[in-house]
Amino acid sequence: MTNYTSRAEKILLRINQLAAISEDEDGITRTFGTDKFMFGVALVAQWMMEARLPGRVDNIGNVRAFLKSDNPDAKTFVIASHIDTVVNAGKFDGPLGVLVGLDIVEHLIASKTKLPFNIELIAFSDEEGVRYHTTYLGSKVVAGSFDDGLLSKTDKGGITLNSVIELIGGKAQLLPGDAIEPQNWLGYFEIHIEQGPVLYENNIPVAIVTAIAGQKRVEITFTGMAGHAGTVPMDMRADALCAAADFVLALEKFALENKNSLVATVGKLDVVNSASNVIPGKVICSLDLRSADERQLIIAYQTVKDLCQLIADKRKITLNWNLIQETQPVTCDEGLSKLLEKAISASNIETVKLVSGAGHDAVPISQVSPVSMLFVRCYKGISHNPLENAELKDIAAAIEVSDKFLEELIKSK
Amino acid sequence: MTNYTSRAEKILLRINQLAAISEDEDGITRTFGTDKFMFGVALVAQWMMEARLPGRVDNIGNVRAFLKSDNPDAKTFVIASHIDTVVNAGKFDGPLGVLVGLDIVEHLIASKTKLPFNIELIAFSDEEGVRYHTTYLGSKVVAGSFDDGLLSKTDKGGITLNSVIELIGGKAQLLPGDAIEPQNWLGYFEIHIEQGPVLYENNIPVAIVTAIAGQKRVEITFTGMAGHAGTVPMDMRADALCAAADFVLALEKFALENKNSLVATVGKLDVVNSASNVIPGKVICSLDLRSADERQLIIAYQTVKDLCQLIADKRKITLNWNLIQETQPVTCDEGLSKLLEKAISASNIETVKLVSGAGHDAVPISQVSPVSMLFVRCYKGISHNPLENAELKDIAAAIEVSDKFLEELIKSK
Repeated sequence: MTNYTSRAEKILLRINQLAAISEDEDGITRTFGTDKFMFGVALVAQWMMEARLPGRVDNIGNVRAFLKSDNPDAKTFVIASHIDTVVNAGKFDGPLGVLVGLDIVEHLIASKTKLPFNIELIAFSDEEGVRYHTTYLGSKVVAGSFDDGLLSKTDKGGITLNSVIELIGGKAQLLPGDAIEPQNWLGYFEIHIEQGPVLYENNIPVAIVTAIAGQKRVEITFTGMAGHAGTVPMDMRADALCAAADFVLALEKFALENKNSLVATVGKLDVVNSASNVIPGKVICSLDLRSADERQLIIAYQTVKDLCQLIADKRKITLNWNLIQETQPVTCDEGLSKLLEKAISASNIETVKLVSGAGHDAVPISQVSPVSMLFVRCYKGISHNPLENAELKDIAAAIEVSDKFLEELIKSK
Repeated sequence: MTNYTSRAEKILLRINQLAAISEDEDGITRTFGTDKFMFGVALVAQWMMEARLPGRVDNIGNVRAFLKSDNPDAKTFVIASHIDTVVNAGKFDGPLGVLVGLDIVEHLIASKTKLPFNIELIAFSDEEGVRYHTTYLGSKVVAGSFDDGLLSKTDKGGITLNSVIELIGGKAQLLPGDAIEPQNWLGYFEIHIEQGPVLYENNIPVAIVTAIAGQKRVEITFTGMAGHAGTVPMDMRADALCAAADFVLALEKFALENKNSLVATVGKLDVVNSASNVIPGKVICSLDLRSADERQLIIAYQTVKDLCQLIADKRKITLNWNLIQETQPVTCDEGLSKLLEKAISASNIETVKLVSGAGHDAVPISQVSPVSMLFVRCYKGISHNPLENAELKDIAAAIEVSDKFLEELIKSK
């Protein structure tokens, strides 16, 4: 039996080394293609080389290492996560999955395990989408779904994605060759912090992800009539904020009634030209609606839209409803999840199944491969924040479960 | 019978002349003590001189004209409004009262009316308080309640009020001498646009103001727990925006139930560090509560505060309640209002009595004198806006009523 704690300590050391590389002096920021990002790429590539894994940095900046099966017809099982971050990020979101992945591959090498399939370990270059406001650049290239139209997109400094690809040593025309052909995928596995409070609140170290929620994002504008807060009687008002408040509460009620299948959030709410002595004439707010069940998501979306229209009509407020983004839910592979469940039981951990409300690289990969994910408890569910934390003992648990998951996978093939 | 329409036309001409004097190229802005403000002072002083009224500009920039009674023991009846404006103002708010006032005084001169009291016509220099964030500078000096502590206050350019007073030709140490002694006040009368929709909606030209509402302004902070909109289940949230929405609606319900005696408004609402995919952790909003009845205002304030605390407690949200401003309600003089009612009836206008939700110079004056006010209908209740409008026929009605009000007042003394 290996010493999971000492392996977790080594991983934590590497996570801290990566976290020290940041565009900001305080906090952690490594966005796609920057100098600091490339510093991170160099560290990860170096650790893969130390493990004597042949590899390369591909044209979108993904760091990729290969562990080959003796079987020339073997398919490829991908273990991956990302190494870019949001602005002022935590240190575990992404790197944890890459470094636990590297550790279990090192363990397979050390234990001279005979592989019935190839393993490819990937550190994706862009999952967060901070620089080009488009997520999954790295994993989309590997899934073969990268959209060439993005190459002319510019960042806030006016630099095109195409230029950044060249700057980091890539060539845009070679991106299609970086994809793993659909017929060569055996499966995909990603270890990631939960970024939510369920494991923390229930005192459980890891969980199986059964699905990744689909999402609809809407911008809602309520337009009433601005007026003087002292001179317009209550029954002669068309207060846009009251309408928005009505919607916020109706949405909360609906989401609580359906809490097992969805979450709904108004995260932004702006009173246009607000002043304490002016009745709000216009309010713009956001709606973020997520569910792992596609049918549920569609029904909930329509229900919430109808609720909103009803509120606006009742209050004689003009409603503008603008759907600005949507993604489909992804279901994780049942077979892989079953093996993960076996590994969790064998590690004497209670089985918990969760839906991921956040998106992950598994989303684009799911178009070409069965996917599976293991969530690791994080402190109070806090993420995208310097307070983000995963404890050593939980990282050790993730290593144990991942080791055993690969054992089961190897046995099954 | 005089031709009220032609008198109203002359007033409208002067209002337009004043409106052309603005700090902004588009719109109307004349804030206390600026070059454009002094241009306005010069115009008004010139019009008073044309009427052969002796007068002066006092140390705070009020333009004042006197019509003396033959009786050496006569008290003074003040007719006034203000000539400063908010930023991007309408043209009637303030100037209408000054120029109708001037017109009725001109009429008294023309008709050689024998006065049992002195009349002082005043164009107050600062009612809006835009430059020094403190209202009623002009009328406080006349009421003898100017606070010397304000002299060291600076505007956004760092210029003290004391410097501005010197720049416009005044001397701070002479301000107390500009007050009308308490024993010399007979009464106060102000004509002003309603700035609300009641007269417009009910198709009535003018109204008697019975009281000016007292006001309490509160800054309310709801603190919950920020979180990822996708990963925190509905029943594990402490959403500060949901709490604020709950409060907005509870407040609206309470105010509607008490609509005859108060108005309540949440005009500002800021979600701190808002993002569409982040559960709001902190919301700061304003509360503006007004009532003409002091007891009602105190009770309502406590009721609303309790309601808010109840909502916060129920939702496990931390509440911070910060009273940042309060003014007492002012009751207009019953005797003067009765004379105003007679004048309105004599003008064949339906009597309407209104509470003013907005503050006026009558507020500080009420500390030393009986006050009375006449509201004039304005288009859709729009004010503090270039769309502000009062129609010629309503200005004519205001002149007729004011003429008759003074006749009644003279008769009564």
